[in-house]
Amino acid sequence: MTYIRRQIERMSGYVPGEQPKVPGLIKLNTNENPYPPSPKVLDVLRAAVDGRLRLYPDPTSSALRQKLSKMHGFEPDQIIIGNGCDDILNLCVRAFCGECEKLAYFWPSYSLYPVLANIQGATQVELPLDDDFQIKVHPPLLSKLDGVKLVFITQPNAPSGVWLQRVELQRVIEETKGVVVIDEAYVDFAADNCLDFAREYDNVIVARTFSKAFSLAGMRVGWAVGPRELIGALNKVKDSYNVSRLAQIGAEATLDDWAYFESNVRRIKATRQRVIARLEEWKFFVYPSQTNFVFARPPAPLTARQWFENSREQKILVRWWDADRIRDFVRVTIGTDEEMDNFLEASERAQR
Amino acid sequence: MTYIRRQIERMSGYVPGEQPKVPGLIKLNTNENPYPPSPKVLDVLRAAVDGRLRLYPDPTSSALRQKLSKMHGFEPDQIIIGNGCDDILNLCVRAFCGECEKLAYFWPSYSLYPVLANIQGATQVELPLDDDFQIKVHPPLLSKLDGVKLVFITQPNAPSGVWLQRVELQRVIEETKGVVVIDEAYVDFAADNCLDFAREYDNVIVARTFSKAFSLAGMRVGWAVGPRELIGALNKVKDSYNVSRLAQIGAEATLDDWAYFESNVRRIKATRQRVIARLEEWKFFVYPSQTNFVFARPPAPLTARQWFENSREQKILVRWWDADRIRDFVRVTIGTDEEMDNFLEASERAQR
Repeated sequence: MTYIRRQIERMSGYVPGEQPKVPGLIKLNTNENPYPPSPKVLDVLRAAVDGRLRLYPDPTSSALRQKLSKMHGFEPDQIIIGNGCDDILNLCVRAFCGECEKLAYFWPSYSLYPVLANIQGATQVELPLDDDFQIKVHPPLLSKLDGVKLVFITQPNAPSGVWLQRVELQRVIEETKGVVVIDEAYVDFAADNCLDFAREYDNVIVARTFSKAFSLAGMRVGWAVGPRELIGALNKVKDSYNVSRLAQIGAEATLDDWAYFESNVRRIKATRQRVIARLEEWKFFVYPSQTNFVFARPPAPLTARQWFENSREQKILVRWWDADRIRDFVRVTIGTDEEMDNFLEASERAQR
Repeated sequence: MTYIRRQIERMSGYVPGEQPKVPGLIKLNTNENPYPPSPKVLDVLRAAVDGRLRLYPDPTSSALRQKLSKMHGFEPDQIIIGNGCDDILNLCVRAFCGECEKLAYFWPSYSLYPVLANIQGATQVELPLDDDFQIKVHPPLLSKLDGVKLVFITQPNAPSGVWLQRVELQRVIEETKGVVVIDEAYVDFAADNCLDFAREYDNVIVARTFSKAFSLAGMRVGWAVGPRELIGALNKVKDSYNVSRLAQIGAEATLDDWAYFESNVRRIKATRQRVIARLEEWKFFVYPSQTNFVFARPPAPLTARQWFENSREQKILVRWWDADRIRDFVRVTIGTDEEMDNFLEASERAQR
């Protein structure tokens, strides 16, 4: 006899990218920001380390919601703060999609979605992206959307890095009878965003994170915005004190130093263009990236796996999946210019 | 049409004790520690506020698990760290009790348990405590345990504060075919604990927190220990990066300053005895507390509600529930000696 729910026993957990403790390693595998949080943020955090840590945090992160609401033009009760964006995605499953109900996600995409579906015991519906890793709404896709309670869409998508065409995304929203969560984890590196869909449609939630563009992956802060009713349901299922005092304070301080954030994002985008240009010179195929990573296929005879392993030998960690449709590619986080020079040198050597 | 799961729409969320922003208020309502984290902990935390916050935390909190495992004599893979103990309780529901399966908890107890059952869509089985708020295993209780997948027991119990007799608790464990979670949130203020049950039985998990005795409620760290198989299942359902870098570091530093922690706990217990003695002098009925709070019934004609409201008028916040079996009582967190003197004075005046 087992004490564990059958679907939990059967499933594998989500495997996060390695967080190695090897010093000197160039870490381009989990899309962290290569630049530290702003000095002002660190000062504010240090000043907040005091006796008040004995007290529970504000359960609803009111001050942070207030700031975000002003900044993006939503009401505070249309916003929820999570212990990272993964917390938010999980809450969406719990609030909108029950056991044996249909949860859909595009593929290839963030591999957490099927894991969350498994945990809930939801029925998984995989929606294939086309060969350009774009959404194409056609009859077979529409029939898959039938009866779906929840759809996850990563915009811009991971691991491809591409911006999904708004018009197709909008058709998915309109054709879906359930909730559509647009996971904008990487949107700060893109030229556009989909917040307007969260304003316009009663079934759209946009989820965001402080982990990537805001350099706070270690603090765990994500947020989501959408119709009051849907956010209210997420509030019912969240842990009461899901976001720590320091996480709330760190995220607030980050929003107060917008210029620092913007300059980092600009730097990362410039580095990204340089890396793409170089790889393309060498005949790598690179998807047009709107994120802080590139998804690239090396030219024959070099295989993605070799490229990945070769980088690893040079103490450069990138990401490679032995999975359908993506095993010919490597995903490389954009690091500092120096890190990327090292990476490019190693990649040049790998081709010889 | 609604986008929200029926049981979520129907249910009310958990209502945490107020976290007011009124300055000068004496806050005796959510069982926080009145003493700050140790100065060494604050120093370590300040020193840890640096550029590494841009990186994801260790997903499994290895260093913290290592420390706890040595301290308590378990293997590291028998331990899991949560974003507060509530995170752990939630993971237990998700791993061990599916939709429409039976989740049992004693009553009165921590009011989060029925909320977690609701969110999961589990069938709630309320197990009544006897008139002394003790477990009594008798045939009607045994029949309620039939087919139960998960039982929550708070030891020592809240809101009564009493230590549940081990022999009865052990009978529950042996008679239950599912997992028994012993929620030891307040155990550091008690004379005994139940870690041995987690060692001895293949269906017992003991959950603990850094929020009460360790003065880290604002940081969000809880943990659980139990058989490797059960902890493995919890690992599958937890968020990958559920505990922030600073939370892990703060909890580790707290364990390194054990003497400070012990002296605080001693102080709180001494204050507790003094408060109980005084209330008993005034003919309040007080349950024998093994926690950092007391659960007391005022002598007629003073009602619990009046006592609660009167305290509030004096800017002292305690906890009162308008609920069966507990509405004649008030729960009072043990604060500093000065805070409790204020509280006692107000309580004396309330009787006039």
